[in-house]
Amino acid sequence: MEVIKEMKKPRIVVLGAGYGGLMSTVQLQKSLGTNQAKITLVNKNDYHYQSTWLHEAAAGTLHHDRTRIDIKDVVNMSKVNFIQDTVVSIAPEQKKVIMENEELEYDVLVIGLGFEAATFGIPGLEEHAFKIGDINSSRVIREHIEYNFAMYNLEEDKKQARINLVVGGAGFTGMEFVGELANRVPELCEEYDIDPAVVRIITVEGAPTVMPGFDPQLVEYAMNSLEARGVEVITSAMLKECKADGIIYEKDGEQIELPTLTTVWAAGVKANSIVEASGFETNRGKVEVRGDMRTPDYDDVFVVGDCALIMNPEAGRPYPPTAQMALQMADVVAHNVKAMIEGSTELETIEPKMLGTVASLGNTDAIGTIMNDRKIYGWTATVMKKVIDNRYLLKLGGIGLLLKKGKFNPFY
Amino acid sequence: MEVIKEMKKPRIVVLGAGYGGLMSTVQLQKSLGTNQAKITLVNKNDYHYQSTWLHEAAAGTLHHDRTRIDIKDVVNMSKVNFIQDTVVSIAPEQKKVIMENEELEYDVLVIGLGFEAATFGIPGLEEHAFKIGDINSSRVIREHIEYNFAMYNLEEDKKQARINLVVGGAGFTGMEFVGELANRVPELCEEYDIDPAVVRIITVEGAPTVMPGFDPQLVEYAMNSLEARGVEVITSAMLKECKADGIIYEKDGEQIELPTLTTVWAAGVKANSIVEASGFETNRGKVEVRGDMRTPDYDDVFVVGDCALIMNPEAGRPYPPTAQMALQMADVVAHNVKAMIEGSTELETIEPKMLGTVASLGNTDAIGTIMNDRKIYGWTATVMKKVIDNRYLLKLGGIGLLLKKGKFNPFY
Repeated sequence: MEVIKEMKKPRIVVLGAGYGGLMSTVQLQKSLGTNQAKITLVNKNDYHYQSTWLHEAAAGTLHHDRTRIDIKDVVNMSKVNFIQDTVVSIAPEQKKVIMENEELEYDVLVIGLGFEAATFGIPGLEEHAFKIGDINSSRVIREHIEYNFAMYNLEEDKKQARINLVVGGAGFTGMEFVGELANRVPELCEEYDIDPAVVRIITVEGAPTVMPGFDPQLVEYAMNSLEARGVEVITSAMLKECKADGIIYEKDGEQIELPTLTTVWAAGVKANSIVEASGFETNRGKVEVRGDMRTPDYDDVFVVGDCALIMNPEAGRPYPPTAQMALQMADVVAHNVKAMIEGSTELETIEPKMLGTVASLGNTDAIGTIMNDRKIYGWTATVMKKVIDNRYLLKLGGIGLLLKKGKFNPFY
Repeated sequence: MEVIKEMKKPRIVVLGAGYGGLMSTVQLQKSLGTNQAKITLVNKNDYHYQSTWLHEAAAGTLHHDRTRIDIKDVVNMSKVNFIQDTVVSIAPEQKKVIMENEELEYDVLVIGLGFEAATFGIPGLEEHAFKIGDINSSRVIREHIEYNFAMYNLEEDKKQARINLVVGGAGFTGMEFVGELANRVPELCEEYDIDPAVVRIITVEGAPTVMPGFDPQLVEYAMNSLEARGVEVITSAMLKECKADGIIYEKDGEQIELPTLTTVWAAGVKANSIVEASGFETNRGKVEVRGDMRTPDYDDVFVVGDCALIMNPEAGRPYPPTAQMALQMADVVAHNVKAMIEGSTELETIEPKMLGTVASLGNTDAIGTIMNDRKIYGWTATVMKKVIDNRYLLKLGGIGLLLKKGKFNPFY
């Protein structure tokens, strides 16, 4: 009897333990009884990482272990079946997920497979540029920079390319990373006996301004904050090629070569390509979900986070792919999956609320807008940034997780 | 009047702030009045480093700043004229030292220019192997290993060469370094999410045993200690070639290739080649000094440390180039330089005393002999090693330096 009952339980499968997938799982684990459904979470690693903190791990200002959370610390393994594996493709017609080591059938699927770097076909970017994508790729950036600083001093014939740090893109991630680098470089110079005056941090941005879309006053503030710390910002410059020992960019019709062994590409992300490759209807690689967060073509498939696209009718463009959006989506997904499991046809519709955005400029400075576009900057903004981060931890894993992984020092 | 007096003062020039040069300077600064002589110390860096601790900085078990001492912390800059410059050559006939930025005349010269790696013409060793030579080269080894551990996890296609750590030579330095690596690898595996079982530490030694010259019982102890921590020791193996991605060694007439991106050459040092190139009479690149530590050919030139060679008539071979020997030489040099300045012809003769030798095998184990070949090992030996290190600091810079740079925790 027990066996039959077990087999009848609807199978919920969540793919990915990023902001959207993990929060959906945690909420479903709380709201559904174990006799109501079998919840399976699939993730490449046995940990979740806060992708909004990775630029700090990459710069070396925050240890990567601070950015990650063991899945077993927030998911109750006796209520959720966790499988550590990599998703290869999804077969929605067969209601099946193909992973590297096994296949999995589902009754309800939640896709939260996150983002990957978009390199727009720029030659050499795939091979020679670093990306801030996950724990592994961020940790390598830190180590690569430290190794080159150490090598700079070892070689009699000094190579400037070792201490020229280039960041491609001055959008949100690019500026946050550059802000951390600006704080990190004096520490690196101390550690490796290098005169800070010879190190260069250079941002190359295609648009005429940094952080396009941000309030001009805040952009001005950010520029001043970074330039005061020695960051060079080159705008209206198109990256043409990335090589092992430098980049070529075009500005004012001229091609300029900049020697560097460290190019970090922070100018674009796209949805995980598995979604499009699996045959879902997509818009710029993402699934333009219905209001209830399901795909247009399958009633049993939800999408959450960076793989989902929701248009903002007022702005005439999609809502940005932020952690904040992923978490709001997760609320709706968890509610609607539970409703479906319980046989209800009344699904909730998402109503995205832009609660504001704060971009850090290193640990000691930030800019942002909160509540109806009120501008904040400096210390206030850094505190607000930490409040946002801490609220997430509290919601995800309660006081225990907050105390373990939270950011508490308002002065640093 | 003051000017003439100043010009008449004999000029003592000390080249190099290693164990021998720095200790000579510190003792002369104490024993001579500033009106008796003008003492100049020339060194490439504005710091001294404990070369006997560098293997720890290279492995990453001790921060390199712990191994270095600012020269201004032990030398009184109002009594000694310190010049940070690199010696290019010495012209003893003209009583002149040629440096990169200036030239310097002397009345009495002390050469303490230390060692450099000896690569015995093995192909590729100069270009592709790392050496534990100074702060810069040791720091790069640490960073290189960390970078490759980080890259190992980033790449889908795992490269074993990134986590194969090869040490060329199982003499004193090689074994001390391997001992540190054995303690460091578990930490690295934790930091970079790598299974310790896949990492290899391999020592390749030409002799049929490790630590040739050491007591066989202690060698046996060392082997057990290292093998228990996963170190592979390949003896009677001749390194034939070092390449960017591996080494080739010959054993039992067979050539074997071992993939590795990290080869650390710890199998030989020789005296700084400036000494021989400057025309001094040398024996295997070193100056076989007279009993009073002067060169055979110049009455105004002393040699101290690894550039000096003293035969041990009982053993029929030279005393080993250790820090202990350098410090005993410095005592005699400082005494004799003072005597010469004061017009005395009674110079002291060195009588080397072998006070024992302790080799660490990581922070938690060691082997050695003290006082008439009494064997020590394990905890006793690690404590003795620290006692030796601390005595040096006390003698060099007093209680202040000992407290700042000493090693006090007997359990680590």
